[in-house]
Amino acid sequence: MNTFAIGVDLGATKIKTGAVDTKGNVFDRVAADTKASKGPTTVINQILYTISVLCSRCNQSECMGIGIGAPGVVSLDGNVVSHPPNFSDWTEVDLKDAISKVHSLPISVDNDANVAALAEAKYGAGVNQKDFLFVIWGTGVGGGIILDRKIFHGPSGGAGEIGHISIDYNGPLCNCGNRGCIESYIGQRYLSQRTREILEAMKINGRTSNIEQLVNGNLDKIEPSIISQAAEQGDQSAIGILQEAGELLGYALASVFNVLDLNVAVIGGGISAAPQFVFQAIESSTRSRVLKPHQNHIQVLRANLGNNAGIIGAASLVM
Amino acid sequence: MNTFAIGVDLGATKIKTGAVDTKGNVFDRVAADTKASKGPTTVINQILYTISVLCSRCNQSECMGIGIGAPGVVSLDGNVVSHPPNFSDWTEVDLKDAISKVHSLPISVDNDANVAALAEAKYGAGVNQKDFLFVIWGTGVGGGIILDRKIFHGPSGGAGEIGHISIDYNGPLCNCGNRGCIESYIGQRYLSQRTREILEAMKINGRTSNIEQLVNGNLDKIEPSIISQAAEQGDQSAIGILQEAGELLGYALASVFNVLDLNVAVIGGGISAAPQFVFQAIESSTRSRVLKPHQNHIQVLRANLGNNAGIIGAASLVM
Repeated sequence: MNTFAIGVDLGATKIKTGAVDTKGNVFDRVAADTKASKGPTTVINQILYTISVLCSRCNQSECMGIGIGAPGVVSLDGNVVSHPPNFSDWTEVDLKDAISKVHSLPISVDNDANVAALAEAKYGAGVNQKDFLFVIWGTGVGGGIILDRKIFHGPSGGAGEIGHISIDYNGPLCNCGNRGCIESYIGQRYLSQRTREILEAMKINGRTSNIEQLVNGNLDKIEPSIISQAAEQGDQSAIGILQEAGELLGYALASVFNVLDLNVAVIGGGISAAPQFVFQAIESSTRSRVLKPHQNHIQVLRANLGNNAGIIGAASLVM
Repeated sequence: MNTFAIGVDLGATKIKTGAVDTKGNVFDRVAADTKASKGPTTVINQILYTISVLCSRCNQSECMGIGIGAPGVVSLDGNVVSHPPNFSDWTEVDLKDAISKVHSLPISVDNDANVAALAEAKYGAGVNQKDFLFVIWGTGVGGGIILDRKIFHGPSGGAGEIGHISIDYNGPLCNCGNRGCIESYIGQRYLSQRTREILEAMKINGRTSNIEQLVNGNLDKIEPSIISQAAEQGDQSAIGILQEAGELLGYALASVFNVLDLNVAVIGGGISAAPQFVFQAIESSTRSRVLKPHQNHIQVLRANLGNNAGIIGAASLVM
């Protein structure tokens, strides 16, 4: 009887591999360093190591297969992973083939954002949503599109790059070369930078913020999670910063919703731990900007699988 | 033998109905006033009139069916047409049912922009493109999405509203209530308004433009086709205006391409008669703003079915 699948969440620093049952519960897990700087062969061996540890502890005859969520571009056939960011010497690697050489189980590979979107669709905040946009708001801004409960890959597998919707063609320069991408407003680096600027301006006026205390005065340590924590403590500057960021994200969502005929966003990534007002800010901003037929249907939901989304979604690929 | 289909292009002022062979040629046609101000019953009778005239001249036993391209939102099942702009007393009308009562042929209804996109996909500029974005640049800016040679309708039939991608969240107020929609920059009214402003500023500096001569000094008569004509005559102000409009459209396309994983746009509507430099401006602007994996694949093509796209696409629905 097939009772579980193995999900591999391949990150640039850690590989998190789990055994996931058919209800989406992770009942066993193994982690290892990715060793991304040592090249693809080492990374593949690390992946294989985590799988073999798990397999040794499970009944392999009940395993449906191995799913892998990988950064970078994954070919439409789910074989080749290209240019994962922060992986040395990794141009194009047939990851499916490499794992297949060792394991005879069914193997499926997809992009990490798509896999997290699938997890939320099957077991998380999106279970009651046939169609939605999944947004990962963290270091960068990424996403996945769920249509009819399935991942929408686009013609060549690259769909869902919602971080690179531009909300101002004269806006700040983004890493990608475009201007005004939503990532260049609310991605971790920008948000931290903007917070530093605000705190420095406050200092001049003799005002302080909880954020400063949370980083013991070292403004270089500001991260979205810190801003979020300060906002929860009621800090007005932190609340203002997250509120504004949420509004900006709403503008990007409105454009995407108009083109794709969507009404629902599920927001994951680091920000999914943020206070509820951030989600309300995104939702009301989106609603104020979409075309009339959408306005009464807009919903912005908090992802609820947290860090497990990668493992669960990867396992879902073979369930 | 099935050799042709009937396509109905339902516009707010004219109904254009044609008999279309399996190669996409319109070999017979009938037009009538829509009489949209007289309500749905009158409009439906006008449609039926054009169909009956065509049928009386064709061999009905060879007809595959009747396709209709309608403005407004068309329900996913292709039955109900809701809120077509500039049609009086038309909230929701089951157009398929109304035509079925008179004709026993297969009947299919879809949105007019989708239908034009399908025509370009099957017989026009998109025949070699599996996936592309179709843009109608005219009075407004609309569009349709072709994925795997089929119309992508979205979850509720409203996909493709590329006119309401915002390129500046602080930009000009659009009819839809949002700010900075690409339609609010390059739709007919904006483009005409901007041209008037430029000509008035030129006058103050003692300079003239061919545009002014083409409208005999009556600046209220400026339309995109006039600007286009002046540009063809080498008028620098007209060239500048269209160049800038093309660049702005490119910014919107880049965002859509990033999210949908597309590389190709086919541009139809009034502007499809514009000089080639406009298409080059759109293409190079899009290329400069999309994510790296797309940059070498960007193509912006001129639609080539002109005013026939509506009839041909509608007929294609039942072929």
